[in-house]
Amino acid sequence: MKRIAIDMDEVIADAHLRFADWYKRDYHKEFSAEQLHSNYIMDLVPSEHKSVIKEYAFHDDFFKDLAVMPGAKEVVRDLHEKYEIFIATAAMEFPNSFLPKLQWLKDHFPYISWTNIVYCGDKSIINADYLIDDNVKHFKRFIGQGVLFTAGHNINLDWKVRVNNWQEVRALLL
Amino acid sequence: MKRIAIDMDEVIADAHLRFADWYKRDYHKEFSAEQLHSNYIMDLVPSEHKSVIKEYAFHDDFFKDLAVMPGAKEVVRDLHEKYEIFIATAAMEFPNSFLPKLQWLKDHFPYISWTNIVYCGDKSIINADYLIDDNVKHFKRFIGQGVLFTAGHNINLDWKVRVNNWQEVRALLL
Repeated sequence: MKRIAIDMDEVIADAHLRFADWYKRDYHKEFSAEQLHSNYIMDLVPSEHKSVIKEYAFHDDFFKDLAVMPGAKEVVRDLHEKYEIFIATAAMEFPNSFLPKLQWLKDHFPYISWTNIVYCGDKSIINADYLIDDNVKHFKRFIGQGVLFTAGHNINLDWKVRVNNWQEVRALLL
Repeated sequence: MKRIAIDMDEVIADAHLRFADWYKRDYHKEFSAEQLHSNYIMDLVPSEHKSVIKEYAFHDDFFKDLAVMPGAKEVVRDLHEKYEIFIATAAMEFPNSFLPKLQWLKDHFPYISWTNIVYCGDKSIINADYLIDDNVKHFKRFIGQGVLFTAGHNINLDWKVRVNNWQEVRALLL
């Protein structure tokens, strides 16, 4: 059975939307869905606010109750019948995310066992056939095929295997 | 550069001693170093205490300030000059261990970056040339060479590459 490793933030969990919500809360500035889809929030805010945005991710509540990315629940459930599924998230940078991420996975992907959840940093440590991730840096030394999941921050990057949403993951892998 | 993944409990961190210390605290029964070296604590306590021992590991303080296994600091530091070192611990079973383990690594192995720390369950997800672990179950589907680190619970198991202490790791890999 082939194995797929799946990233969390910007792939199955909408952390980008949380950044935008908190920015709206603090600065009363709202971005459209189109703006958020085509841009990284860091590039939408004035330079003096970039450090504020970065700090959000270190807040205890940041990773709680994130929205599930559209289609992720249905497609991951179907992938799970044909592949060995691991969740691989670079959580080590954010110790505040450890418990909320585990709870979030229990809530939304309860059939994924704790044995198949990985918190790491450098994802070249992952042994899988595919890695679905929004960050190309993780593909450089990855042993399998990196599948770039489109996010505002990677929209202009070249990568040969790109998916724009979970329907495209289904088309590629099922 | 070849890569070594190193387990934590019973390999670099003496969790077994913590079990024994807490058992002594609660039941006033002390085991000798020789007993602890040659037996799993589960096999030393009466059957009605096995569940107590198991529960210890879920206590918030269990993973705090564990003793470093003899020789681990010196040998891992030397390995770090010739190999890419990752720490790979099956922490996912014990969410109470997440923060203490990270702090422990910062305290005792400060040169190991957060990018090279992995919390997982099934270690077949680890892509490394060697995995030094006290649990043979992690070697079954491991992509590299499993190196069994002797512990009371594995002393009677057959495994072709076994090390009894950190000096033997040095002899094997340096």
